[in-house]
Amino acid sequence: MENKPIIGVIGTASSHDASIVELAFEVGREIARRGAVLLCGGLGGVMEAACRGAKKEGGITIGILPGSSVSEANPFVDYCIATGLGEARNLIIVLSSSALVACGGGAGTLSEIAFALKHGKPLAGLRTWQLRNGSGQEGFFPQFESAREAVAYLFKRLEV
Amino acid sequence: MENKPIIGVIGTASSHDASIVELAFEVGREIARRGAVLLCGGLGGVMEAACRGAKKEGGITIGILPGSSVSEANPFVDYCIATGLGEARNLIIVLSSSALVACGGGAGTLSEIAFALKHGKPLAGLRTWQLRNGSGQEGFFPQFESAREAVAYLFKRLEV
Amino acid sequence: MENKPIIGVIGTASSHDASIVELAFEVGREIARRGAVLLCGGLGGVMEAACRGAKKEGGITIGILPGSSVSEANPFVDYCIATGLGEARNLIIVLSSSALVACGGGAGTLSEIAFALKHGKPLAGLRTWQLRNGSGQEGFFPQFESAREAVAYLFKRLEV
Amino acid sequence: MENKPIIGVIGTASSHDASIVELAFEVGREIARRGAVLLCGGLGGVMEAACRGAKKEGGITIGILPGSSVSEANPFVDYCIATGLGEARNLIIVLSSSALVACGGGAGTLSEIAFALKHGKPLAGLRTWQLRNGSGQEGFFPQFESAREAVAYLFKRLEV
Repeated sequence: MENKPIIGVIGTASSHDASIVELAFEVGREIARRGAVLLCGGLGGVMEAACRGAKKEGGITIGILPGSSVSEANPFVDYCIATGLGEARNLIIVLSSSALVACGGGAGTLSEIAFALKHGKPLAGLRTWQLRNGSGQEGFFPQFESAREAVAYLFKRLEV
Repeated sequence: MENKPIIGVIGTASSHDASIVELAFEVGREIARRGAVLLCGGLGGVMEAACRGAKKEGGITIGILPGSSVSEANPFVDYCIATGLGEARNLIIVLSSSALVACGGGAGTLSEIAFALKHGKPLAGLRTWQLRNGSGQEGFFPQFESAREAVAYLFKRLEV
Repeated sequence: MENKPIIGVIGTASSHDASIVELAFEVGREIARRGAVLLCGGLGGVMEAACRGAKKEGGITIGILPGSSVSEANPFVDYCIATGLGEARNLIIVLSSSALVACGGGAGTLSEIAFALKHGKPLAGLRTWQLRNGSGQEGFFPQFESAREAVAYLFKRLEV
Repeated sequence: MENKPIIGVIGTASSHDASIVELAFEVGREIARRGAVLLCGGLGGVMEAACRGAKKEGGITIGILPGSSVSEANPFVDYCIATGLGEARNLIIVLSSSALVACGGGAGTLSEIAFALKHGKPLAGLRTWQLRNGSGQEGFFPQFESAREAVAYLFKRLEV
């Protein structure tokens, strides 16, 4: 019934970098302003900042949690999905998103980037992992300087 | 942000029994009338009928899909979660629901009943499985005749 | 390379019934005597007793654990698979087994019985759940009095 | 009962590079010569070559399959685990291994590298992904030129 695209935001729960958290907040705002639903891992840090940004603009947020209780969700998640799967839930975040923004990130975020590449999901990077494979290839997805550019890129990709 | 309870509806995609499908439709209506969110496996049959009922009353529906594409969801699902996990997604349906209604059902529904019992989730049955364990115990959850009674029972349980 | 069949044994980690534990031990012995590999959830109670029985006869045992560390396996598991999936690993136990014995059991075992029925896996019951579906059908799998009979039934089914 | 370490081998099913397949074969031989069990994703390409190498040296192999049938395993897998989870099974490969070798690899392998870093598992690379995180850090795991060196490194790490 809802035909709004779902945009995933991936990043760590434990970012010590205030500028990454600020970027995530702006990503959330951009997603909501464009009328898309924001989906993430539902926890704190980058995830919470993105949800907070989306709610500030009246958007809708979904959290795919690693644990078995919805109580671990950050307070800006509208719809909590408790998977009980630990990090295997990272694949669900990718499969359920039409496109994704990686915002900073640690090893968990890297696994989500990998799944996004595997499934050919449009992916925009903001100060996140850069990759070179065993054959020396690079540039698997574009990196941006601002939340606005990153989200604009994804919407352009989804139009095609 | 949303403080609406999430009620799960479990039942088969392939019910040949029109009265079960009608029951599921009424279950969906009752859930939406009471302001709760309906969550299910997102496919056809009982799941689709319940979603259709909820949408008729202006409710919100979430589908937790077994496959890796949101395109398999029935047309009455608002928010589609693509898990790619096959029937392992049945556990997610249970963990994400505050309480559940089992409406008819085959082996997949039985697995969801089992997970609901395991996690102590309030569960109401409508023409579904009856169980006796190896020690001869029965009556693990109540069975009802109408959608209204089943849903009313769950809300009463959630109040406590 | 190994062409030995894999037989799953399902039952609770916390059986307070010594006769169920004794039955599980005999099930493990029978499986090993017939040259099959025993697969289970890798924890204590029925699972440990079955593994202990298999090892007494020189058999091989595999444990599919719910947690993320192999250290939670009982000491009679040869090959530990750490899934980190919680009870979603119950589906893996069923899919990886050619046939299964249910020995007593609680709600987790019921979910495994459900998945075995769903996937058409031969299943033998020993003092376990009895089922009646919403249409009044019963007898979804046979129940036996002894480990020997239960395991013999499964091997007969696998010969076909 | 078995106290042999389990070494995971990760890499793609569809390598077009004969030298990568040859490397994987040698990795499998090294693992078996040292008395460890080889665990992998159970499919073709790098996975099959590694299993073939292990079996040539009389080793034992375990395959954690993405699908729901053990029939998709390569012929050099001794013990097949059918997960039905798709790529979510990549996490199981990492959690069940004491240490891992990444041999070439595509996006799926990258997800396994990510999970290995997340869980602090010793990891050796052979012509595989090189990573730089958003803060510019590199060198998350060592890369080697030969199978012998890669496997020797892992055993040294496990001794500590």
